[in-house]
Amino acid sequence: MKRILPVVAPGAPVSEAPFDRIGVVGLGLVGGSFALAARQRWPRSLVIGVDRNEVLERAMVRHAMDVAADDLGMIAEADLVVLAVPVADIVRLLGELPDAVPGTAVVTDVGSTKRAVMEAAAALPARLSFVGGHPIAGGARAGIDFAAPDLFAGRPWVLTPRAGGGGAALERVEAVVRAFGAEPVVMDAARHDRLLAGLSHLPQLVATTLMAVVGEACGADGLALAGRGLADTTRLASSPASVWAGICATNADEIGAVLDRFAVRLRELRASLGDEEAVTRLFDEAAAWRAGLRAGAGSD
Amino acid sequence: MKRILPVVAPGAPVSEAPFDRIGVVGLGLVGGSFALAARQRWPRSLVIGVDRNEVLERAMVRHAMDVAADDLGMIAEADLVVLAVPVADIVRLLGELPDAVPGTAVVTDVGSTKRAVMEAAAALPARLSFVGGHPIAGGARAGIDFAAPDLFAGRPWVLTPRAGGGGAALERVEAVVRAFGAEPVVMDAARHDRLLAGLSHLPQLVATTLMAVVGEACGADGLALAGRGLADTTRLASSPASVWAGICATNADEIGAVLDRFAVRLRELRASLGDEEAVTRLFDEAAAWRAGLRAGAGSD
Repeated sequence: MKRILPVVAPGAPVSEAPFDRIGVVGLGLVGGSFALAARQRWPRSLVIGVDRNEVLERAMVRHAMDVAADDLGMIAEADLVVLAVPVADIVRLLGELPDAVPGTAVVTDVGSTKRAVMEAAAALPARLSFVGGHPIAGGARAGIDFAAPDLFAGRPWVLTPRAGGGGAALERVEAVVRAFGAEPVVMDAARHDRLLAGLSHLPQLVATTLMAVVGEACGADGLALAGRGLADTTRLASSPASVWAGICATNADEIGAVLDRFAVRLRELRASLGDEEAVTRLFDEAAAWRAGLRAGAGSD
Repeated sequence: MKRILPVVAPGAPVSEAPFDRIGVVGLGLVGGSFALAARQRWPRSLVIGVDRNEVLERAMVRHAMDVAADDLGMIAEADLVVLAVPVADIVRLLGELPDAVPGTAVVTDVGSTKRAVMEAAAALPARLSFVGGHPIAGGARAGIDFAAPDLFAGRPWVLTPRAGGGGAALERVEAVVRAFGAEPVVMDAARHDRLLAGLSHLPQLVATTLMAVVGEACGADGLALAGRGLADTTRLASSPASVWAGICATNADEIGAVLDRFAVRLRELRASLGDEEAVTRLFDEAAAWRAGLRAGAGSD
């Protein structure tokens, strides 16, 4: 455990910030960006970063936190805990949190699927108010080295309150999201997981499978002839398995359903490659959706 | 028919250029870039651009040619004819060329599939020496407005000579390709079509189908939550149906074969979404191919 840059004494009054002691568990791209954004907005709040020592060292270079810790001990007095690790680890950490944080706190996460997280969060004691979260922000590269305080600016941030509404905790997390320049979008975990199966999980699995098939079919020599199209379409194939195994496992039903729809459309196309009208119809349909996406995504 | 900027009188000696009168039929992104590159390299050669009047007007603004024509009449005395239109139109034009070009000329194309083109070219008279071509260069946007003389720099340019080798015609086309900064890669049409089915046609059809399925599954409201991953993976879904219907029709067998391999891997993935080891294996395999692609493609 290391303490660096203790800019404010515990208990000192901090007026404008929604939270005084913010514990961020996991300092990857999203957790690191959360910590950087919090330090930038609320210099008098204490930001406590928890990760492996190797990551903490890189996070310190980025000035991502006031206090660095390699276990949950330092977040005992946090009033906001942010779980910014892969979904399977979020579920595990939710089990450890009641012991690690003995007082009252708001707890949120940034996990890519929400039903499994909300289920695990249902077992938390009442003093730990949980609001599920998923900032729809990312980048071509992962890790603390690519973290940035403006990662969330202009992006949606899904919030999934516990059954019965999120009350004051939801409002306070929404304040954080807005302070980071993101747009809170409140929905239930089931709708989140269904939507994200299409918006994120299917594209990822398609890109990964495509890269494996094209690599196997064309070989390294053939790949040397690849143009920009393949590079764009398979950019996601560099994504880490460690994050995606958990997403696949915790959203298998919704991913399976949309994979089935994709397989049906692909089979139809396979049967009509020589049919100019059918091919044109599919291309026109896709181009129309893509035009809307471009306007909406703002990341093109 | 319009003649503009006749910088050199027909028949004037032009020493360094491999061709004196270059007719480019089709002034889209690739044809327009070919014309711009030729004018830039060989200011004393005559570049004749053929397209619809509406395109010619935009091409003139770009200074893409010396002579603009809306039919094949002006290329009668060309010593190089470049067919830069979709594959189905290349096949049609190859039938019209013997009447349009009464003398000796080298003919090449930039079509995305090569077997259908080579078959049509086999009927050309001996005075028209055909060398199939496919510059593996493109951009996010099509059309003369995005044409650039350096579009081909550092990119592969597949050349498919006629059976028995291309002889002097192949050497002269290779000289053009090298002068544009591209790397000639000579192979037969069957190998080209097999490789491109994986490198280009499968990614295109997957991106298009993906966009259609995600659009349908999530709707316009859902798409507003999309992140950069979907935008990257579906960038190709804006491609024009007019080009792709011809590619699908003239390479249906090879596209079908690689679509089948893709469908098999997708089915395997569907069955193992909850199997962390299987998902990790697929992601690792894809990431390894992608790393090689990044080094090779140079377009990332």
